[in-house]
Amino acid sequence: MNNKVSVYRKEHFNAAHRLQNPAWDESTNASVFGKCNNPNFHGHNYELIVKVVGEPDPETGFVIDLKVLSELIERNVLNKFDHKNLNLDIEEFKNTNPTAENIAIVIYKILREKINQALELQVRLYETERNYVEYPAFLKTT
Amino acid sequence: MNNKVSVYRKEHFNAAHRLQNPAWDESTNASVFGKCNNPNFHGHNYELIVKVVGEPDPETGFVIDLKVLSELIERNVLNKFDHKNLNLDIEEFKNTNPTAENIAIVIYKILREKINQALELQVRLYETERNYVEYPAFLKTT
Amino acid sequence: MNNKVSVYRKEHFNAAHRLQNPAWDESTNASVFGKCNNPNFHGHNYELIVKVVGEPDPETGFVIDLKVLSELIERNVLNKFDHKNLNLDIEEFKNTNPTAENIAIVIYKILREKINQALELQVRLYETERNYVEYPAFLKTT
Amino acid sequence: MNNKVSVYRKEHFNAAHRLQNPAWDESTNASVFGKCNNPNFHGHNYELIVKVVGEPDPETGFVIDLKVLSELIERNVLNKFDHKNLNLDIEEFKNTNPTAENIAIVIYKILREKINQALELQVRLYETERNYVEYPAFLKTT
Amino acid sequence: MNNKVSVYRKEHFNAAHRLQNPAWDESTNASVFGKCNNPNFHGHNYELIVKVVGEPDPETGFVIDLKVLSELIERNVLNKFDHKNLNLDIEEFKNTNPTAENIAIVIYKILREKINQALELQVRLYETERNYVEYPAFLKTT
Amino acid sequence: MNNKVSVYRKEHFNAAHRLQNPAWDESTNASVFGKCNNPNFHGHNYELIVKVVGEPDPETGFVIDLKVLSELIERNVLNKFDHKNLNLDIEEFKNTNPTAENIAIVIYKILREKINQALELQVRLYETERNYVEYPAFLKTT
Repeated sequence: MNNKVSVYRKEHFNAAHRLQNPAWDESTNASVFGKCNNPNFHGHNYELIVKVVGEPDPETGFVIDLKVLSELIERNVLNKFDHKNLNLDIEEFKNTNPTAENIAIVIYKILREKINQALELQVRLYETERNYVEYPAFLKTT
Repeated sequence: MNNKVSVYRKEHFNAAHRLQNPAWDESTNASVFGKCNNPNFHGHNYELIVKVVGEPDPETGFVIDLKVLSELIERNVLNKFDHKNLNLDIEEFKNTNPTAENIAIVIYKILREKINQALELQVRLYETERNYVEYPAFLKTT
Repeated sequence: MNNKVSVYRKEHFNAAHRLQNPAWDESTNASVFGKCNNPNFHGHNYELIVKVVGEPDPETGFVIDLKVLSELIERNVLNKFDHKNLNLDIEEFKNTNPTAENIAIVIYKILREKINQALELQVRLYETERNYVEYPAFLKTT
Repeated sequence: MNNKVSVYRKEHFNAAHRLQNPAWDESTNASVFGKCNNPNFHGHNYELIVKVVGEPDPETGFVIDLKVLSELIERNVLNKFDHKNLNLDIEEFKNTNPTAENIAIVIYKILREKINQALELQVRLYETERNYVEYPAFLKTT
Repeated sequence: MNNKVSVYRKEHFNAAHRLQNPAWDESTNASVFGKCNNPNFHGHNYELIVKVVGEPDPETGFVIDLKVLSELIERNVLNKFDHKNLNLDIEEFKNTNPTAENIAIVIYKILREKINQALELQVRLYETERNYVEYPAFLKTT
Repeated sequence: MNNKVSVYRKEHFNAAHRLQNPAWDESTNASVFGKCNNPNFHGHNYELIVKVVGEPDPETGFVIDLKVLSELIERNVLNKFDHKNLNLDIEEFKNTNPTAENIAIVIYKILREKINQALELQVRLYETERNYVEYPAFLKTT
C-alpha cells in the first residue's frame, strides 16, 4: 500500500450554468435554488484538480506523465466544457442538474474510461474559492 | 500628497456573459471573439478590488470605513451583477460589449457617484486569475 | 462507498488568543509556548474549511446546500468566535489551551450536533497559511 | 525616470488589536467600531509588502539585496510587532488607533529611517485577504 | 481512531533539476522527458507540506509543536535541498531521477527517521502550482 | 488620461539560474550572493505579469486582445526562457547577472518591440511569492 504516490494536475475552465431540476415547476426551482436558478444563467471559473494514484514507474519515476495527463484532460474535459453553457451545450446535463457534485461525477466518469484501470482516480472541482466538491469521497486504500 | 493612504476592499460576484459587438453580424463576432462569443454564454467568478485614496480621518484613523465601503459595493454592484447574465440582465450592456474593460468602467461609474468626491477611486476586476484590468489606469497624484 | 461526494465550504474569522496551560505556572508556560504565550495576546485570521460527506440528493443534486451549510457555520461558529478573544470570551477555552488542534475539535463538536448524523464531518483550520490542522484525522470510509 | 525598478519583499506577523479612539468614551467607540472594538481584543495575520524603488546597482544587478531588506524588516518591524498586542505592547499605539492605515504609516516611518534616502519606499499592509492599505498612496515619479 | 488530529506545516525551497534516467541514452531521455531534460537544467520553487497525525498531548494541546517541526524540516530538508542542484548536489539523486514523486519519497524517508514513530507522516510536494504529488498515498487509519 | 484602462496577463516559466557577476572572482561572488551563487545553479517558478495601458477600442472593447497578448508572450518570452538555464542558455545573460531586476528589464525590452508603441508597457516578475520586481517603476501618466 505505502509504495503508492498520489499525483495531481490542476486545470480550469469557464462555463455558464443555472441550477434547475427539469422535473420541477419554475416556482419550486426558484424557491429551492434561489439566485442560482436565474433563467438567464450565471457562471464560474471552475478549477479542476485531477488526482491519480499508483506506484511510480521505476524507469521514469512517474506515476503518470503529468504532461500526458494534462493533455488527456484538455482533450476530453476542457474542450467539452470550456466557454460553454453546461445546461444547454452539454449532453450529460440535459436531464441532470449541473451542481458541482454532478459536474464532478460527470468529469470523473469521462476520465475514468481514459485512464489505466490500475490507477485510482479522484476529481476535485472548485465552483468558487469557497465552495468545492470531491468525487469519489473515498479511494480504495488497498 | 504623501499624507494620503490607499485602502482596498475585495469583493466577488459570479456572472454569465458572451463577448459580442451587437453592431456586427454573427460571423464577424465569431471570428473576432472566438469561443468567448458562444451564443449560449459562458461565465466567470469575477473578483473586484475597489481602491479608495485619501487622508485618514484623524479621529477614526480611517480613510473610509471598509465595512461601509463593503456594504456600498454590495448594495450598488453585487446586488446588480451577482448571479446575473451581463448581456441580458444588465441595462448598461444592452449595447455595450461586456469585456472586462467595459465592466470595470461601468462599475467605476456606479461607485463614483456614491463615494465622496474628495476621495479618489480605482477599480480592478479579475475575470480570471490570469486576465484582469484596472480603471482608471492613472489617478491624479495631487 | 463510491457514490459519496465530499463537499467543502470555506469561512473565516479573526480572533485573539494566547497559548497557555492554566494548570502550569508562568515560567513553564513561557518556556514551552515562547512568544505564543505573550500575556497581552496576539491573533490570527483563521480560515475554516468544513467538509461534509454523503450521497447527493437525487432531486437537488446537493449533498447539502452549501448556502445552508454556510449559514449554519455563521450562526453557530462565526458569531461565537469572530472578533473575540478565545481565552477570555469563549467558555470552551476557559480551561483548555486554544491551540489550533483544540479549536478544531471544539468547532467539530459544535457542528457535529447541527448536521445530519448520516453525513460525515471534518474540520480543517488554518491558523496561518503555513500552520494548519484537521480533525478528525480519518473518516469512516464505509 | 524609466531606469528605475521597483522591488518587493513580503513578510508577515501575527498580532492582537482593538480599534478604539482613546479620546472617546466607551459607547462612542462601540458604536463607531462595532465588533472591532471588543475590549478583549481580536487579531490578524498581517501580511506586509515593502516596496523599494531605485536604479539597480550595475555591479550586483540589485536595487537592494532582498535578503538584506528582509533582515532589516525582521529586525525593525517583525521583532517589534509579531505576536504582540498592538494597543498594549507598542508605544506608537498608546495614543493612536491601530487601524490598518495607522499601522502602515508607523511601519513606513520606522523603515524610512533605515533605508537609503535615494531609494523610494512604500508599504502595503493586508489586515485580511479582503482589507488592505498602502502608504504613501503616491510616490514621486521623478 | 477519531481522537487523532492531522497537523500541517508548509515550507519551501528553490532548486534546479533536470529529468533524466541515467541508465538511458541521451536521445531516449530527450524524447521521454522533453524540455524537462534540458542538459543545462531548469528549476522550481518547491512548496513542501509536511503532515503529522496523532493525538494531541493533553498538557500542551499539540500533536507536535509546529515550531519544532519547522526547525526539524529546516535542518534536515531545507538545508540540504534549498538553492541546490538536485541532480548534482544531492547524493540520493545521483542514480535516481528527481521527479516530484521521487523527491517526495526521499524527503519522506529523511523525515520518517526524525519523527516519533507513534506519529504518522505524509509529505506533499508542489513542483508548480499545477503539478504536485503526495507520499505515501494512504495512511494507516487505525 | 482617465479614459485609459490597464490590462494584465499572467504567465509563468520555470528556469535555473545562479547569481554571479562574471567580472568578479569566485570568492567575491560567493560572499555577495551567498547560496544564490551555487555553481551548480538553483531555480524558480517565475510568475510573469505583463501590463498594457491604453484606451479600449470602441468596437471590440479591448485595449489589446488578451489572447493575442498571451500568444505574443508565449512566442517571444516563454519559448525562450521556459525550462532553460538563464546563465547558460540565454544570450542576454552571458554578461549580465540574472537577478530578478535584470530579467524583468530583458523581458520588457523584448516585449516593447512587439507591442504597439501607443500602448504603455510594464512587467512584473515574481521570483518567489515573497520576492518580486517591476519594471519600469513608473509609467508616463499622460
